[in-house]
Order: sequence, then structure tokens, then C-alpha cells
Amino acid sequence: MPKQSFSQMLTDIDTIIKQQVIPLEPLFLSQQWEQLYQQMDQIRLQVKAQGLWAPNLPDSVGGMSLSIRQLGQISEVTGQSPLGHYCFGCQAPDAGNAELLHMYANEYIKTNFLLPLAQGEIRSCFAMTEPHTAGSNPTLLDTSAELIDGQWVINGRKWFTTAADGANFTIVMAVTDPDAPKHLRASMIIVPLDNPGYQNLRNIPVMGHSGSGYYSHSEIEFKNCKVPANHLIGEQGQGFKMAQQRLGPGRIHHCMRWIGIANRCFDLMCQHVLQRQITPTSTLADQPVIQTKIAESYAAINASRCLVMETAKIIDEQGFDAAKHHISMIKFEAANMLQLVVNHALQSMGALGMTDDSIIAFFYREERAARIYDGPDEVHKLSLAKSLLKKYL
Amino acid sequence: MPKQSFSQMLTDIDTIIKQQVIPLEPLFLSQQWEQLYQQMDQIRLQVKAQGLWAPNLPDSVGGMSLSIRQLGQISEVTGQSPLGHYCFGCQAPDAGNAELLHMYANEYIKTNFLLPLAQGEIRSCFAMTEPHTAGSNPTLLDTSAELIDGQWVINGRKWFTTAADGANFTIVMAVTDPDAPKHLRASMIIVPLDNPGYQNLRNIPVMGHSGSGYYSHSEIEFKNCKVPANHLIGEQGQGFKMAQQRLGPGRIHHCMRWIGIANRCFDLMCQHVLQRQITPTSTLADQPVIQTKIAESYAAINASRCLVMETAKIIDEQGFDAAKHHISMIKFEAANMLQLVVNHALQSMGALGMTDDSIIAFFYREERAARIYDGPDEVHKLSLAKSLLKKYL
Amino acid sequence: MPKQSFSQMLTDIDTIIKQQVIPLEPLFLSQQWEQLYQQMDQIRLQVKAQGLWAPNLPDSVGGMSLSIRQLGQISEVTGQSPLGHYCFGCQAPDAGNAELLHMYANEYIKTNFLLPLAQGEIRSCFAMTEPHTAGSNPTLLDTSAELIDGQWVINGRKWFTTAADGANFTIVMAVTDPDAPKHLRASMIIVPLDNPGYQNLRNIPVMGHSGSGYYSHSEIEFKNCKVPANHLIGEQGQGFKMAQQRLGPGRIHHCMRWIGIANRCFDLMCQHVLQRQITPTSTLADQPVIQTKIAESYAAINASRCLVMETAKIIDEQGFDAAKHHISMIKFEAANMLQLVVNHALQSMGALGMTDDSIIAFFYREERAARIYDGPDEVHKLSLAKSLLKKYL
Amino acid sequence: MPKQSFSQMLTDIDTIIKQQVIPLEPLFLSQQWEQLYQQMDQIRLQVKAQGLWAPNLPDSVGGMSLSIRQLGQISEVTGQSPLGHYCFGCQAPDAGNAELLHMYANEYIKTNFLLPLAQGEIRSCFAMTEPHTAGSNPTLLDTSAELIDGQWVINGRKWFTTAADGANFTIVMAVTDPDAPKHLRASMIIVPLDNPGYQNLRNIPVMGHSGSGYYSHSEIEFKNCKVPANHLIGEQGQGFKMAQQRLGPGRIHHCMRWIGIANRCFDLMCQHVLQRQITPTSTLADQPVIQTKIAESYAAINASRCLVMETAKIIDEQGFDAAKHHISMIKFEAANMLQLVVNHALQSMGALGMTDDSIIAFFYREERAARIYDGPDEVHKLSLAKSLLKKYL
Repeated sequence: MPKQSFSQMLTDIDTIIKQQVIPLEPLFLSQQWEQLYQQMDQIRLQVKAQGLWAPNLPDSVGGMSLSIRQLGQISEVTGQSPLGHYCFGCQAPDAGNAELLHMYANEYIKTNFLLPLAQGEIRSCFAMTEPHTAGSNPTLLDTSAELIDGQWVINGRKWFTTAADGANFTIVMAVTDPDAPKHLRASMIIVPLDNPGYQNLRNIPVMGHSGSGYYSHSEIEFKNCKVPANHLIGEQGQGFKMAQQRLGPGRIHHCMRWIGIANRCFDLMCQHVLQRQITPTSTLADQPVIQTKIAESYAAINASRCLVMETAKIIDEQGFDAAKHHISMIKFEAANMLQLVVNHALQSMGALGMTDDSIIAFFYREERAARIYDGPDEVHKLSLAKSLLKKYL
Repeated sequence: MPKQSFSQMLTDIDTIIKQQVIPLEPLFLSQQWEQLYQQMDQIRLQVKAQGLWAPNLPDSVGGMSLSIRQLGQISEVTGQSPLGHYCFGCQAPDAGNAELLHMYANEYIKTNFLLPLAQGEIRSCFAMTEPHTAGSNPTLLDTSAELIDGQWVINGRKWFTTAADGANFTIVMAVTDPDAPKHLRASMIIVPLDNPGYQNLRNIPVMGHSGSGYYSHSEIEFKNCKVPANHLIGEQGQGFKMAQQRLGPGRIHHCMRWIGIANRCFDLMCQHVLQRQITPTSTLADQPVIQTKIAESYAAINASRCLVMETAKIIDEQGFDAAKHHISMIKFEAANMLQLVVNHALQSMGALGMTDDSIIAFFYREERAARIYDGPDEVHKLSLAKSLLKKYL
Repeated sequence: MPKQSFSQMLTDIDTIIKQQVIPLEPLFLSQQWEQLYQQMDQIRLQVKAQGLWAPNLPDSVGGMSLSIRQLGQISEVTGQSPLGHYCFGCQAPDAGNAELLHMYANEYIKTNFLLPLAQGEIRSCFAMTEPHTAGSNPTLLDTSAELIDGQWVINGRKWFTTAADGANFTIVMAVTDPDAPKHLRASMIIVPLDNPGYQNLRNIPVMGHSGSGYYSHSEIEFKNCKVPANHLIGEQGQGFKMAQQRLGPGRIHHCMRWIGIANRCFDLMCQHVLQRQITPTSTLADQPVIQTKIAESYAAINASRCLVMETAKIIDEQGFDAAKHHISMIKFEAANMLQLVVNHALQSMGALGMTDDSIIAFFYREERAARIYDGPDEVHKLSLAKSLLKKYL
Repeated sequence: MPKQSFSQMLTDIDTIIKQQVIPLEPLFLSQQWEQLYQQMDQIRLQVKAQGLWAPNLPDSVGGMSLSIRQLGQISEVTGQSPLGHYCFGCQAPDAGNAELLHMYANEYIKTNFLLPLAQGEIRSCFAMTEPHTAGSNPTLLDTSAELIDGQWVINGRKWFTTAADGANFTIVMAVTDPDAPKHLRASMIIVPLDNPGYQNLRNIPVMGHSGSGYYSHSEIEFKNCKVPANHLIGEQGQGFKMAQQRLGPGRIHHCMRWIGIANRCFDLMCQHVLQRQITPTSTLADQPVIQTKIAESYAAINASRCLVMETAKIIDEQGFDAAKHHISMIKFEAANMLQLVVNHALQSMGALGMTDDSIIAFFYREERAARIYDGPDEVHKLSLAKSLLKKYL
């Protein structure tokens, strides 16, 4: 895509986010789900009409051949609202799932799952994390899939399966080769969620809410859940490798989304302090202790953006392997930037920052997870350091 | 009270908190208000029967003549659960209101408001903070009360009026002497909440929830709200002075409550990491990065407790004025300790820490307010420093 | 310069730094000045012979027309040793002075001062900071220069005049127009240091040492110090504007130098922990608490480098004004990164980190100044925030 | 000692520190050792005359039977100057050595070493840390002592042997029982330093200086160094146990000394900002960003002092074992408080803070070691956490 038109595209997306998506947030914050989804569906139609739908999609299913850097920039813009990615059809985990199916799935899966997913007709989820085993250690994975009589028989429990509520299918990570070397034990299998062997046990209450539909995280169970053999994605035993593969663009997606959130909080903080009178002749914006928070937030956001965009550049130009250290590094760097900025913004808003009259309180509680999911800070730091130290041996 | 029996009292309270109060938290977290209040009422009866009710109360209304230090120690124990103070009848703002009425109110008010309050028959609230003026600057207070024909006519809007929902009366802070020196402009007046000039506009949604009953924060309005002249508390124009007075024991109460919360989070963190398997032969507790969080939390909690207890000692032995710097200092010191410990605990729990399966997520989001209410960190730091610097002039 | 050869140039510089410059550091740390300067002079000759001398210089005096980005990259490499910039003839304040004279000085000054300076035959200094006035507030500048009988008569005291000891001339900032608007009061004037009206009062002991020659910071005095009228640089009253101008490339120079220091500390930390045995079968490098420091340092360094290089890019492509916010932001961002990394490195070295057996202790104490000179963190944050807030009005 | 007279004693010590000791610091900072020691000797005479000498000493050698808490309070006062403890004869490592000899040494040692030490006639040192083994792991101790023909033959190398330069004897920790359980392998032996088998290899340059006399840290060597069998302190194999024993009061001593340093920095910061003009009508003290540093420093100092004094109280009332967690905790808590306060003070002083015109720069560089010696932060945190976690099993 020519530079000119991409820049226009970013502007168009930003306009929709600011003028149409953000005004829906009060419905979201007050859990008026039905009305919310109805109105978001309207926006989705318009987004499709404007040719802005699912910018992340692979070419073959109607995508735009954007670079990782460009996808990152879009994610920053849509990330300003928790409703943004959904409205533009590039929300996790569907985005990652689509890319995965595009790369590895057989024709049957592509036709029956990828196509309707790409068109936004159905939603999907990704069942990897388990309640009783540490995600950071694949050898502990409990969920199993056995090939019996031409069918995968799946047993196990998963949680934090984002958006399972209302999804049409899930990709499940299960141990298929228990005796293989530990990184070759698991495979990915597609399970339609109307399967009688599948059950959504509950939408987990997260930070006070169980959510609904796309905005939820479920605990789910597979009990002798049977799917045909051709529901295997890619090759048997390649589950971890594909999960790793899925991680790269997803990392950029998330980190840039966090930067979008930080931008939004920064804007709200600046707007608030300018209008908050504290003496007859001055506002909070005149207070050096507030100015300090603004400057620190701005520097943190910009440093993170530069680092994440450099990571995207390395991926675009040299591939994922060359970006390995960067992909690990931006996870904790950007997540901590986010926590800093959200905290500064909330504190600057005073009591208002605690209320749902502003979106900041939502970001504060919900995005705390940024330092945990896809590997907590601590795990990324240790693995990054070990890898870096090898260069000094 | 003899030292021995006070120590026994602490143990008794701790037992009730651990065995009866904490088990009710799931009702609280899932907003099953009716069932929750019913069960808490049962505990209140038992607490009264055991002679543990309202330890903070003034002597004349059935109190125990405890020192500020002892009240602080009780607050640390009841603070372990968000339900603790309520079950023991020493919850804010009722506790502070009772003390205030005890010290300053006329007999009419004592008989009609203080007595039933002390016995836990009714609840009260305290209407000070306003949505459109900075609480830190009293000259900006908007709400007014005019004495017309022997009645106070009150007009204005307040918010973050904790526990207004279901309260029987409020103490309202209003400007009665607009032309007086700025710290002598306001007075405190009692308003029964069935007054037609009073309206509870909404329970403010805070961190995702509007709450209910005692567990709520309201935005309220006074429109030509009339109460008899004898509803004035203390002397006219003494509002700020009494508010200041109310602050000292309240500060110890809150800081020790935060330490109780930190203790709870610390316990949950230690218990979790010991049982969370990460390899077949080790748990999270074996991880040095987790151990570091545990040690830092422990040191922070203990340093805060020592500092708050020293503050209480100074108040007990030398009075509030002598403790002025300490009262200001512990506000931000303990609030930041709390944020540190809650964050460490949440991070150590991993994904579980984000869920309402543990109470930590509640503390994380709700107690963020500790750094804001009763004066944000920033305001306390500046005023403390200005006062300290005077000694060097 | 073609990309290929610039990359080769960086490699060549790095080789000299690592193989010849760093081995001289023990002389530096033990204050064996004579021997040190003698050996550095040898390296300078070789640097000139290899065509690597003074890469920062303006074209007209033998420079290489490098971009700000390229100069930044060189500064990162030479910054690895406190001796690096001097050996390559691009040390502050000479580098900034040369650029300033190149842009603003008359032919007389260029011939007599700029040329020998550019060739490394003489050294210079820059006298701006005063002991008794706040550098952040130009209206407080005390030093004055009056034009009397065709001569500037200068009076005043300066300190932290880096490298005054042994310098041939200084550029002095003095008030020439006391009644002009405050940013138009000062001018820059060249003073040869053999002037009888000039005195070097002392090399200020900084962090335990008074230093010597280039490596020193002096307190100096002008007492009826007379220089010819044509020693004025640029136009009268343009002192602050030129100082501002001087700042942009200087900022990149310093920030990239700090990144070079951070790289050096990072290398030393990694090397040390890998060889420091703590049990018969493991080293410090196996300790997760050390790994955490390594990962955090790496992320901080990379984020800073990205941000500083983006700043350089904006300067190169859009000029200084467009980079105003960035130039302010990188000052405190990079200085704090440096403090973090040096602290992590020192702590990882244990007792060795406190000794002069490693260069880290030097960086720890000496580069603490990074957060102070050219405007302390606090000043940059406030001015950045004020500027950012204007966009929200 | 009666409370009244102890309080008077503290005042007397403070007066001497402020009026006589602090004025000698310029000699110290400019390494005018001879003049410095001469003048300190004068103060020591006066201190003895006033009956304030060596307050820490055991009763039997002229001590005052002070509690650990009281010793802590004295250490806070003398700690205000790096010269304080020496002038009052209670400097480490002599203080700890005296206590150790008092508790464990035989009569021969007491007469020949303890008595002159207690009277300040000679100085001693304590040789434990080794350059090539991790102090945190006793099994790695290299230095050995073999009993041959009634003599201990000692071989090994030590470093960071504080005050070895000019000391009369050292206590050396050496492996005497290599095959014993690892905590029973080492013993303590007294070595007079005129022994031909002993050599002071160098005063280690620490943060730019090798120091002199008491103010130095040496690298020393024992080569077939022979001393009589009765130079053994206590029982063979009890080295680690005695070292542990020595640690408790030493920890209070050091932590309170750090608080004294922090007090000093706090005073200097407040005094400086009040007189540093930044506009014609205001000083640095009017800047909220400075006030914030002052308030944070004050809170940190007070929290630390409370925690350390509580530790001393537990030791006094319940003994060392009961204070085990506290003794570990205050090490890193107080050391980090110190780093925070010194950093805040230095930053508030601006460029002046980097110079030796103020003592802050010395504290900044020299006391960085607080987070390293006697076990780095990291080691204390891990061991504290492991011990705390046992309570949750």
C-alpha cells in the first residue's frame, strides 16, 4: 500500500474511533451488552463499507498485505478504545487464529472455519492456558488428545480462554505425543463449540465482572470431546512451534494496543488537569507535581513506541528469529510503561479517576493483566537474560 | 483495659474474621447483597454478644476507653476483610461521625442520632467532597447553608459520600459564613435523609460497580433542603476545625486497615506460591524473583506498621498537634506500601490474581483510592515539606 | 558518506577504543596524568593517520558531513571509555564550541581560534554556569561585559567550566544588554586564557577529585578582563539563542555517550557474573535476581537508544524546532536509564563494583551529574509538560 | 543509665559532632590525613575527659551497660559525620571485635589485645571477605589455618579488610576443620600484624581513593603466617557461629549510622534549598518538585528509624533469635532508604551536590556499599523470604 494512502487510512480509522467507537464506551462500562453489540455491529458494517475491515488478514482472504509495522500503527489507533479492535475486525484472538489457519490449516478447515472468521460472521477462541499447570512450562500441559478410530478424543480443562462465550470454534492445544521430547508433545486441533464433549463452565469473573460475549474469559472443559482427524492444524507435535510463530505479530499487536491505551490515558489526563480548577486563577495543569507525571508519561510512551516499532521493523526486514530478543523485551517494557502511565493518569484525575465516569479506571484494573498474560514480566526477563548471556560465554 | 485481656480480644476478633467473615467474601464479590447483609447481621449479633461491638466508641455510649494504639491494632485485624469493620460496628464513616457527635453535638442530636448510631441500629454518612471543587482548597466549597426563619436551608452537590445508600442521616459540610476568613466559613449540620430537599442522585460506579448499601459511594444533592437550627454540630464556622479533629484517629484507623489488607495479601501470596507447582519438583515459592517480592513486601509492611504505631503513640501521649507531621506522613507512606504489596501479591498469583476467585483483585482496584481520598499523596507531601522547612529558617 | 564505509568506520573506532583506549583507563583512574596524556596523544596521532579525527567537525574545517544520527552512533562507540571522545577529537565542550564558531564567528576568530581547535592543537572551554545564580533562569545571570573604548570589559565568576585547566580560550556568556528583554540580554565572547583579567581559581573537587587538564571542572573569575570588540561571537544579545542552538547536537552527543557507557557497564556486568563462582557448580549468572537486572538493563538501554536515534532522525530530517520535545525528553529519559544501568551493574559486581579495579565505580560517581548538568531532570520535565499541555488548550 | 542522663549524653555527643567533628571534614575530603588524625586525636582526648568514650564497650572494660537501643541512638548521632564514630571510640570493626573478644577470648588475649583496644591505644581489623570466593557461601572459604607444632599456620588472601592500614592486629576467619559440616569448618584467630607471614598488599582504591589509616580497606595476604595456639578465639569450628553473633549489634550500629547520614543529608538539603535563589522572590524551597523530595525523604527516614529501633527493642527484650527476621530485613530496608535520601539530597543541591564542597557527594559514592557489604540486598531478601515461607507450610 502506498505510504500516502496508508497514512490516510490511519486518519480514517482514528476518526471512526474518536467519533463513533468511544461514544459507545458508557454502554460497555455499564454492561449493557445487547445494545452495545448492536451498535458495534452497525459500525462494523460501515467499516467494511469503507474498506477498512480486518486490515490484518492474510492476502488470500481479502487482506491488504500490510507490514507488521503498519499493523502495529493501526493497533495503536484502534487500541485507544477497548471496543476498537472488535469494530475493525482485528481483535485477538481471532486475528492470530486467522493468521495461524492461513499458514497451517488444510483446505477443509480454511473453507469451513477461516473464511467465515475472516468475514466476521463467526468468532473463535484459543484454548491454551490451564488452571492447574504453569503455562510457562509446556511439560506440565494436562489436556490430552488421543487419535482413536479416526477421531481426536480430547480431555482437559482450560481457562482464560478469551471470548469463548459465543464463539463458534476454538483452537485447542493438547498433548498428542506424551512420550516425545517435551517441545514436540502438543498439537493444535479445531473444535466447534457445539460439540457435546465441550462445556463452557463459566465466564471467569475478572476484576469484578464476568463480561459477556467477546468481552469475557472462560473456564472450559473437554470431556471425551471428539472431532474428526482432519481437524488437526498443521502437523502433529508442532503445537508449540506454531504457538511460538503466532506470538510474533501478536506481540506487536498487543504492545501497540497498549501504547494506544497509554495515548488515550495521556489525552484524558491532559484534558482533565487543564479544566480542573484548584484556585480561582489556576488549574491542576499549573501544578509541577502534575506536570512531572505528564512529562514522565510522555517520555515512557515515546520510548516504548520507538522500541516496539523497531521490533516490528526487524521482523519485517529480517524475520522473527532476528527479533527474538526484542519480542521478549517489549513484552515487559511496554507492559510496565502502560502500568506507569495509567497510574499517573488515574492519580491526576483524583477521585474521578476511580469512577466509571472515565475509562481510566477500566484500563487500570483490566490491563493490569498485561504484565501477566503471554508470560509474566519475570519469565520474560529471565529467558531474555539467559539468551543474552550466551553471547558473553 | 488490662494488656492481657486486650491481647485476648485481638485474638477473638481475629478468629471471627478468619472463621466467619472471610467466608462471606464470595457473596460480596458476586454482589449478592441481600444474602450478604443478612449473614453479616448474624455476625454482628454474635459480636455484640461477645462484647466486641464498636470498640472505637466513646465511653459514654458504651465504649471501652481504648487508646488510639489499641484501636489501630483492632483496625489491622478487622481490616483483613473488606467486611471486617462493618461486622464489628467500627466502620468509617460511622466511627468518625460517632466520635464527632460525642465531642461536639448537643443533647438533642446525641439522643436522636448518636445513640441509635452507636448501637448499630442506623447508619450515617459524611458529605464533604464536591464534584466540581477541589477538596484540598476549602475556599472553593460550593455547598451553602443559610439560616432562614430558624431553619438551615442547604443547597449544593456532594459526591463520594460513602455509604449514603441506606443511611439514616448525613453530616454535611456547608458554607455558613461566606465572608469569614477562609478556614472559618464552613459548618457541619445534620440532615436526616428522608428530607424532601435531599436526593441520592446515584451510587457512583467505582471501578466497575455501583455497590449497594454500606458498600457504595453516592452523588447526592441538597435543594432548598431545610433542617431545624439545632441540627448544627458544635459552633458555627467550626466545620474545618472539627473536620481536622476528626482526621487524627481516622488516619490511624485507615492506615492500620491498609496494613491489615497488606497482611491478608501477604498471606494469600505466600500460600499460593507454596502450592503452585511449576516443575514436578518445585513450586513458585522456590523462585528467587518471587522470594524477592515476599521479602520486600514484608519489610514494607513492617516499616509502615512501626511508623503508624509510633504515630498512634505520639497521639496517645502528646496529643494530635505533636503528631501533625506524622499524621500527614503516614497517609502517603502507608498508601504506597499498600499499592506495592497488593501489586506484588497480584503478580505472584499470576492469572488467578486477576480473577475474583481471590480477594486480591478487589483490593487492587478498590484500594487504589488510598492514594487519593483524604488528600492525594501529592498534597500531603507538599504540606508536610512546607511545615518541615520552617524548622530550618 | 556511503553506508558501507560508515559502518566500517564505526568498526574501526570500536577496535581502537577496545584495544588501545580502554587499556589506558588504569592510568586515568590512578591519576597518572602525565603518562596518560602522553599515551593519549599517541592514539590521537594514529586516529588522525587513519582519517578518523574529529568526525563531528564542520565541512569547512576538514569534517565529514556526517548526519546527526551518524555522529550519535560514533558517540555511542567512543562513549564506552571516559577517554574515548578525547582520543578522537570530538570531546565536549570543544566539539560544541567548534560548531558554534563555525556557524557564527567572524573570520578573525575562525582563523585564530577555530582552526587550531579543529586540528586539536589547542583546547577550549565554555563558561556559562555561575556558582551563585540558577542556570535555569537567564535573568539571574551575574557576569557582565561592557563595551568600553572598543574593548569588552568582563566581570563575573563562573564554575563547572569543564576543561578550563590547560585550555587556550574560553567562550564566556555575559550580560551585555541588561535592559533588553530577558532572553536578549546576553552575548558570547571569546577570551584567551592568558588574559591577565582571567583567573582559574581552582579545579573544583568533584566526587573526590580535582582532576587535571581536560578532565577537570574549574571555578574561574573575570576581573576587568578586557578583550577586543571583535571577540564577540555572532550578534550582540544573541547569547541565549546560540546557546540553545548549540544544545541540539550536544544533546544527541551526550545521550549517545551515556548509552555507550551503559553498554560498557552491561558488558562488564555480563562478563563478571559469568565468571563469579558462587557454588562449585554455578555462577552469579545463574541467579534469577541477577538475570532480572540484566534483562531490565538491556531493555532500558535499547528503549533509550531507539528514542535518542529517533530524535536525531527528526533533527536530520526536519530540523531542531521539530525535535524540541524530543530533545527535552531524551535528556531525562537517557540520564535515568544510565543511573539504572550503572546501579544494576555495580550491584551485580558486589564489592568489586565499589573499587577502582573496575571502571563502573567511576561511572557511578561521575555520571551522576547526567541528571543535573544542562538542566536537571526536574526542569526538563516541567518545561516539556508545559509545552505539551498547550496542544490540549 | 537513667533516662535523663542518657538523653543529656546524646545532646553532649551531638554538640561535639556538630561543633568540633564536622568542621574537620574538609581535611578528610581533601585527604590531609596527618592533620586530620592529629585533630581527631585531640577530640578523642576531650571525649574521654567528658566520659563519653566508647559507649559500646562491655562493662568489664569500662563500658556503660547501655542497651542495644541506646547504642543505636548514639550511632545515629555520631553517624552524622564519617568522622563521628572514630572520635567516640565506637567505630567498626573495633567495636565488634571488642565485643567478640569480651565474650569469647581467653585471658591472655583479653589482657594483651582487648584492653589496649578498648582504651583506644591500638586499632584492629577483621579479615573475613575473600577476593575470589563468595562471602555468602561459607563452604567456599579459601583461607586455611592448620595447627602444626602448637602453632596456627595460616595461608590465604582477604580483601575489604577495613582499617588494616595501621592496625595492630586482625581477627582472621580461616578453615580449620575442612572435613567438618560446612558451618563448623572455620575458626577465628588473632594475628598481630607485625607478623612476618602477614602482608598488606594494598589499600584498595575504592570510589577513587585508597584512603589512609583507619579510613581504608586493604587487600592482605597470609603466607605461612604462624601464631601461637592460644590465639584461637573461642572454640575451634565456631567461627561462623561467632560471626553470626557479632552481626546483631553490628547491624543496629550500621543501620542507625545510615539513619544519621540520612539526617545529615536531609538537613543539608533543607538548608540549601532555602537559601538557593531561583527567582528574585523565590528559592528552590518553594518548588513543589523539591518539596516532594523532602517529604519522601522524611517519611523514609522515619519509617526506617522506627523499624530499626523496633529491631533493637526485640533484641534487648527477647534476644537475637527472636529478632532474626528483623535483623535481615533492616539491612536492605535501611540501605535502600539511605540510597533514596542521598540521591534526593544530591539532586536538590544541583551541581554543588557533585562537588566536595558538600559532604553529600562523599556519602553518595562511599555509602553505596551499604547495599553490598554484610550481604547484598538480594541475598538478604532471599534468605528472609525462605524463612518467612516456612511459617506457611
